[in-house]
Amino acid sequence: MVQIGYLGPRGTFTKLAVDTAFNGENKQSFDTIPECIDAVSDRSIDIGVVPLENAIEGTVQLTVDYLVHQVRLPIVAEIVVPIQQHLLVGPDFSGDLSSIGDVYSHSHAIAQCHQFLHNEMPDANLHFTSSTGKAAEMISESGGDVAAIGNKLAASEYGLTIHRDNIHDYSNNHTRFVVLASDKQQINITHEVQTEKTSLLITLPSDYAGALYQVLAAFAWRKMNLSKIESRPMKTGLGNYFFIVDVNEPYDDVLFPGVIAELEALGCKVTILGTYPVYLMNI
Amino acid sequence: MVQIGYLGPRGTFTKLAVDTAFNGENKQSFDTIPECIDAVSDRSIDIGVVPLENAIEGTVQLTVDYLVHQVRLPIVAEIVVPIQQHLLVGPDFSGDLSSIGDVYSHSHAIAQCHQFLHNEMPDANLHFTSSTGKAAEMISESGGDVAAIGNKLAASEYGLTIHRDNIHDYSNNHTRFVVLASDKQQINITHEVQTEKTSLLITLPSDYAGALYQVLAAFAWRKMNLSKIESRPMKTGLGNYFFIVDVNEPYDDVLFPGVIAELEALGCKVTILGTYPVYLMNI
Repeated sequence: MVQIGYLGPRGTFTKLAVDTAFNGENKQSFDTIPECIDAVSDRSIDIGVVPLENAIEGTVQLTVDYLVHQVRLPIVAEIVVPIQQHLLVGPDFSGDLSSIGDVYSHSHAIAQCHQFLHNEMPDANLHFTSSTGKAAEMISESGGDVAAIGNKLAASEYGLTIHRDNIHDYSNNHTRFVVLASDKQQINITHEVQTEKTSLLITLPSDYAGALYQVLAAFAWRKMNLSKIESRPMKTGLGNYFFIVDVNEPYDDVLFPGVIAELEALGCKVTILGTYPVYLMNI
Repeated sequence: MVQIGYLGPRGTFTKLAVDTAFNGENKQSFDTIPECIDAVSDRSIDIGVVPLENAIEGTVQLTVDYLVHQVRLPIVAEIVVPIQQHLLVGPDFSGDLSSIGDVYSHSHAIAQCHQFLHNEMPDANLHFTSSTGKAAEMISESGGDVAAIGNKLAASEYGLTIHRDNIHDYSNNHTRFVVLASDKQQINITHEVQTEKTSLLITLPSDYAGALYQVLAAFAWRKMNLSKIESRPMKTGLGNYFFIVDVNEPYDDVLFPGVIAELEALGCKVTILGTYPVYLMNI
């Protein structure tokens, strides 16, 4: 049976993404992103799911940096999940918003609901927890006039009620997760494929004006569209950069080898991080 | 007296940046990034310091998105601080590494020390807290064979001892903070200026192949060097992007107006987020 690892604990957005994409009970929680990636790398699990962009828990930069500097595993799929935060209360709570004195959640989730909290619950005391799942666990144990902010999985995992749904400030906010695996054949996601992408890691030979412009020229004249570009400092010191580029096309045997040959002629180092389907989850 | 706000609590990296850059006791802690930015915006404080890149606590995307979508305040300075994590213990602790059974910290800090923990303390139980400062506070109160991961400010604030210094995996890792203020005159940082930068927010008229390439052409032919480029999805839905571009030059009256006129002719919307000095702190 295929073993799937994810950034825990229960009731987090990563777990929600994993449960939506993959069936079965063969799922294992990891405490940190590096631990999850290491487990895929040493084959103690088959598939790892870690946040890549806009995550509530787990730092995005850490995933990119760990993949770039420590462990080179191919990205085999991307899962996009809308960020939907709800105000969760215990099953015995019968008051209204104004009777809730304390709200618990991860600081990022609280920040994402800033307008709601500011306008509708200005007197509530805010308390930070290490994850949204932890917040749900805490109020399920404590009871009383308290609430947690989290997703619907946190509600069901800890027997909580959604008192107000969709309290997040931005309705079109998504979080992206990458699926890592040594063996692409292990992946079996039955959802509809939204698009196909290829992610490249590009290191420039030196820091000079217009270098990035030359790099993009190789894509532009081939009419290859980029859906993301991000520069990140190398860990070798300030002033050195690498770029992560997402191309809105699957890898092919003509355009991509042409791009790579041109970039290498410029002195760049190019690594293919993966070519993979993107799944948009309706949760 | 100039009032300075920062993302709290005590003993965090943001506080370390603030204490290194600014003298005096006129500093106020905020629970979330939006609360801190709002306070600058409504002038209840003069200066706000929030994380922008590679932060331990506080999500980077949130700062950018809040500045772009909610509150438009100029960036008046950038503070760059090396990330240095230490293993902190109580003053009465006299054992060695192997006698420490439990380690507390923010999950990002624990992840940044992954190699150290994996190799040197493989049997320690890891516990996540809402911030590195909170972890330091917890072990200062509990005592016993426990440790926290945090910076030297956390050690001094809570009377802890640095048992092992510099346990972070990457020695050249930095975190960037932006200083926001309605009135640039309020800023008084006496450290040496490392460089001058200008940050631009660029929105493309539509998503077509090579649009970014055209945008970069306006900078490239003027030999203006970019130190950062990052695409971020608009909150209006998937598939729409804006770009944050950092130019390694202060704003001037010739090159920048020329760039902006060219980009506007292409149908782009350009906003100057700030033109400001960068201070590299030696802590």
